[in-house]
Amino acid sequence: MKKSLNELKELGRLCRGDILKMTTVAKSGHPGGSMSSIDMYLSVFNMANIDPENPFDPKRDRVVISHGHTSPGVYSALARLGFFNVDELIAGFRHAGSIFEGHITRGIPGVEWTTGNLGQGLSAGVGMALAAKITGDNYHVFVLHSDGESPKGQIAEARRTAKKENLNNLTVLVDYNDIQISGRARDVLYVDIVKEYESAGWNIIEVDGHDYEQLFNAIEEAKNYKLGPTVIIAKTIIGKGVSFMENRHEYHGAPLKEDELDKALKELGLENDIEKYKEMRKNLPLLREKLNFEDYVVTAEPGTPIVYTKDDKIDNRGAFGNAIADLAKVNKGKVPIVAVDCDLKPSVKLGKFEKVSPETYVQIGIQEHNAATIAGAMSVCGVVPFFADFGVFGLDETFNQQRLNDINHTNLKTAVTHCGIDIGEDGKTHHEINYIGIVRSFFDTKLIVPADPNQTDKAVRFAASTLGNVVIAMGRSKIPVILDENGNPFFGENYEFEYGKMDVLRKGEKVTILTHGSVAYKAVKVADKLKEEGINITVINVSAPLEFNAAKISEYIDNSHVIIYEDHNKYNGLIVEFSKSVVKNKLNPLTVESLGVDNYSPSGNNASLFKIFKLDEESLYSIVKEKINE
Amino acid sequence: MKKSLNELKELGRLCRGDILKMTTVAKSGHPGGSMSSIDMYLSVFNMANIDPENPFDPKRDRVVISHGHTSPGVYSALARLGFFNVDELIAGFRHAGSIFEGHITRGIPGVEWTTGNLGQGLSAGVGMALAAKITGDNYHVFVLHSDGESPKGQIAEARRTAKKENLNNLTVLVDYNDIQISGRARDVLYVDIVKEYESAGWNIIEVDGHDYEQLFNAIEEAKNYKLGPTVIIAKTIIGKGVSFMENRHEYHGAPLKEDELDKALKELGLENDIEKYKEMRKNLPLLREKLNFEDYVVTAEPGTPIVYTKDDKIDNRGAFGNAIADLAKVNKGKVPIVAVDCDLKPSVKLGKFEKVSPETYVQIGIQEHNAATIAGAMSVCGVVPFFADFGVFGLDETFNQQRLNDINHTNLKTAVTHCGIDIGEDGKTHHEINYIGIVRSFFDTKLIVPADPNQTDKAVRFAASTLGNVVIAMGRSKIPVILDENGNPFFGENYEFEYGKMDVLRKGEKVTILTHGSVAYKAVKVADKLKEEGINITVINVSAPLEFNAAKISEYIDNSHVIIYEDHNKYNGLIVEFSKSVVKNKLNPLTVESLGVDNYSPSGNNASLFKIFKLDEESLYSIVKEKINE
Repeated sequence: MKKSLNELKELGRLCRGDILKMTTVAKSGHPGGSMSSIDMYLSVFNMANIDPENPFDPKRDRVVISHGHTSPGVYSALARLGFFNVDELIAGFRHAGSIFEGHITRGIPGVEWTTGNLGQGLSAGVGMALAAKITGDNYHVFVLHSDGESPKGQIAEARRTAKKENLNNLTVLVDYNDIQISGRARDVLYVDIVKEYESAGWNIIEVDGHDYEQLFNAIEEAKNYKLGPTVIIAKTIIGKGVSFMENRHEYHGAPLKEDELDKALKELGLENDIEKYKEMRKNLPLLREKLNFEDYVVTAEPGTPIVYTKDDKIDNRGAFGNAIADLAKVNKGKVPIVAVDCDLKPSVKLGKFEKVSPETYVQIGIQEHNAATIAGAMSVCGVVPFFADFGVFGLDETFNQQRLNDINHTNLKTAVTHCGIDIGEDGKTHHEINYIGIVRSFFDTKLIVPADPNQTDKAVRFAASTLGNVVIAMGRSKIPVILDENGNPFFGENYEFEYGKMDVLRKGEKVTILTHGSVAYKAVKVADKLKEEGINITVINVSAPLEFNAAKISEYIDNSHVIIYEDHNKYNGLIVEFSKSVVKNKLNPLTVESLGVDNYSPSGNNASLFKIFKLDEESLYSIVKEKINE
Repeated sequence: MKKSLNELKELGRLCRGDILKMTTVAKSGHPGGSMSSIDMYLSVFNMANIDPENPFDPKRDRVVISHGHTSPGVYSALARLGFFNVDELIAGFRHAGSIFEGHITRGIPGVEWTTGNLGQGLSAGVGMALAAKITGDNYHVFVLHSDGESPKGQIAEARRTAKKENLNNLTVLVDYNDIQISGRARDVLYVDIVKEYESAGWNIIEVDGHDYEQLFNAIEEAKNYKLGPTVIIAKTIIGKGVSFMENRHEYHGAPLKEDELDKALKELGLENDIEKYKEMRKNLPLLREKLNFEDYVVTAEPGTPIVYTKDDKIDNRGAFGNAIADLAKVNKGKVPIVAVDCDLKPSVKLGKFEKVSPETYVQIGIQEHNAATIAGAMSVCGVVPFFADFGVFGLDETFNQQRLNDINHTNLKTAVTHCGIDIGEDGKTHHEINYIGIVRSFFDTKLIVPADPNQTDKAVRFAASTLGNVVIAMGRSKIPVILDENGNPFFGENYEFEYGKMDVLRKGEKVTILTHGSVAYKAVKVADKLKEEGINITVINVSAPLEFNAAKISEYIDNSHVIIYEDHNKYNGLIVEFSKSVVKNKLNPLTVESLGVDNYSPSGNNASLFKIFKLDEESLYSIVKEKINE
């Protein structure tokens, strides 16, 4: 321990002043919960093995704060423990010219995970603790969450995984102040927090969350407990330390007015110096510089691509399964490749991987929210995780978890299978027809929709060896290897994957089909059939639909009939990037036809579904012929 | 009870045959779990007060099956109890020409909720049971879920709400067969189901799930238990009834091959008549007719609009709060207007509503997944619910729950506040800048982004009085009432809301601003300022961005400089519908400028954020001037 209990107690008094000042200066923020959690924050950051001089050391302990709105508390504890300057914090809090955002932000020294949307912090901590087990690092992970967010189902999920994986390097502290926005937590929605942790098999310690000695002893005990994870349930008081704020839910999200602040600071025995901070604030720039995240992450060796030949019968997800197993082999002993599964091993083709690397295969069960956050958090702790799931679970069900991963600048590879109506009989609840639309919502995630097993193999290796979030979207069915005009694999030995590059699969005139994913081969078949009739049309594969740039292929768009052909919601797919790009570049296609899924599909074999939505080869053939005869 | 226990037992044998036949005929489906749950399905449907001759009677009991992949079991039980023809079922299962989809589908007699994505059924049942308490109906709600899906956090959430609301009209049956796709459930991810229900305070009964007498007695006991909800935990065997299928996870999602089927049917003492069904299947149409959902839902009286004048200072969310309180008053004693809240009452402005109608104000706590499904399910049980939440929770966090509501053809009104960077200091985790992109993903949900408090009032009344799902997206800030050129409220007494109609707020030439939501008034201010300089530009409010049709306003687009001006992700907002529509209609704007949010925003007051993203009035003014001088 770096500070004595008495020193911490004194810091607690100072931090309470900081919390109140910064929220009043910013005229916004959450003082109540910050004062409830502050003694825990000081205790944990003080006992954790994190060096303020080297806060990004890979071997450091990790502290994840799930109730990110208590940022004034987190920031003030870190500032008072030497992580950054306290004056800049008080002046800059919630100003766009400062790094001290309204909710805590990864990249600030001492802050491991951007939170604010409640209930995700425990999963992030579980991910970090799991990563440490895999990398063999000895660091400890602390997670702090509030009682108000305890109802979130994702916390129940994360608790179970922590127990299952026997994460004795994980300690949770719950701020149990029994107050949330709408009043007493027990009245809003009762959660028996102790019983719930008990039923998940955790070690439980109960303390007074404002008593530094009790906190110290509990944290020591938790760190030394080896039979699994420990939770410290800390009874606290919202607004603790200022008489008129204590136990008042009104101070959850409202700063003190200046006269109230004056009164509160007097009670704390502190000088009211906010005029100084108001002055400093005026001189802040409009916008702060970006934080740097690249020192958190690793990439893997891509290995040697597997080339499938025209006689191979394999689905893209099978090619994914082969590639990730190969990546695990190639990177063994160097960079751990991790697979995160939600009870879909046979379907997402992780069987081979598990055989090659059982120690990095992680089974989360049917808990997708938890899995997505765990995988995201692992990705910033020295491993390269692939979160493999059906599209509807890995994107739709976990939309916000993936958004938070994106916001956290993680290095996650999401491999979603069973995309499109290609999944057929399982029906509309399982049809992920919106993989482009969803990833379009994220600013820092790449999307690859490979056209065949060869391109899939290359895309998986690209993802593993490139920094940043990548989503690879695949269908279910076995599809043929796409060949070039000479009958050789188009994405074969000489093909190098380049993100955003479009593939001209067939060259022709008058008609251009723009396609991607599991229907691309059908477009090629239609083109080849037409060729036999002496008609040459163009087929372009857009493996990165969000990077579509019409200007790069303007010769195939201007004065051509363009057909967008995709196994995707037709309102939200490639047609969007195409239209935006055509308008932007003032191109002039003769006509534009958009073929895609225009409503929830019934359940049926995919041949019938493709027919219903005019995505079958015959329909495509007829449409092309119409255009040619126009 | 309509059938005796002996009759049920015999039906159990027949149903097992049906399950195996239909999955083999369809060459797909889930026989294992169906045979595990079938005795429970027969028991519940037999004891429930549902008349096969009048299956949509509003007073009927409701049965929600959460593990929707056991559709062969559900369908066969219903068919054998007289709800529909068993031959059509066996022949049509998982064929697009039949109503019997791969996962159970609302609208089929006896099926109350479309499931398949696991973990949502209990919330749906809670919603229905809550609705019954509000409408004063006496029906009972049964929910069946599996042990494999028990880890889903949403189930933990729903359990707590059921207890909090004292839902003694709710009985849950858990199919505890300890098998899921990847093997034994306890190995995949251990859940102590009994302890978890216990810690939520439920009444618990344990039975053998294949013993009709035990099931009968347990269900009777559960129905008569008045102190809260009851769960019946039923120990079962996957594949039960066919020796070589029992306890084998391989039969979770794989049908029997024809020779295996033959063997199984012999063991069950049943004739193998699948050739007949294969023949019938050949004659099915490509696509079935649509199911009808309108008899499930109600609409409310819209009441008399509140008109805000130019001196009123109010935010759109405040106008929503006033409107919903008024709707509750107007419809009292007729159609219950319900508000579903997740601990955000002051922010989403439900305070007035709660005073007017405390009995229909539902506090779910911080459990958004649960809340979204509950609200959706309530909407098909005789009430008109508004799910009020921040945008990031009501759309992003609950994306898949909302998708499932959409698939279920619910009648839900989602009122999301704090949309856009207008929320300011709370920062990027709380900025919902994707409300258009998200609703674009749903085929049957309307989106309204009102421009001011008057339009908000009208939109809320429109939503309450119109069938179907509606999302109303609002910002946080107080904004002025938009006036017409004579200084009267534009959306005042003479304005009637029409979904999809665009509002020409200002008429001019050469420059057209297309806008919506909380920045629309800024565009008007810029236009009015320019007018003083003798320059007239056009400002059009697009309150239903997904219905944007450029052809209807072509005179303002062709040969004009068009500026899309929106507080939204600029890759995914109105620019998308605009571009698609311009390409489709072959229009020729002079230039197109897209102003929106092009990255995660920092945290700061909204004046500074609007400035950073060039969404402030000054930036807009400069851009317009540039265009005019071009």
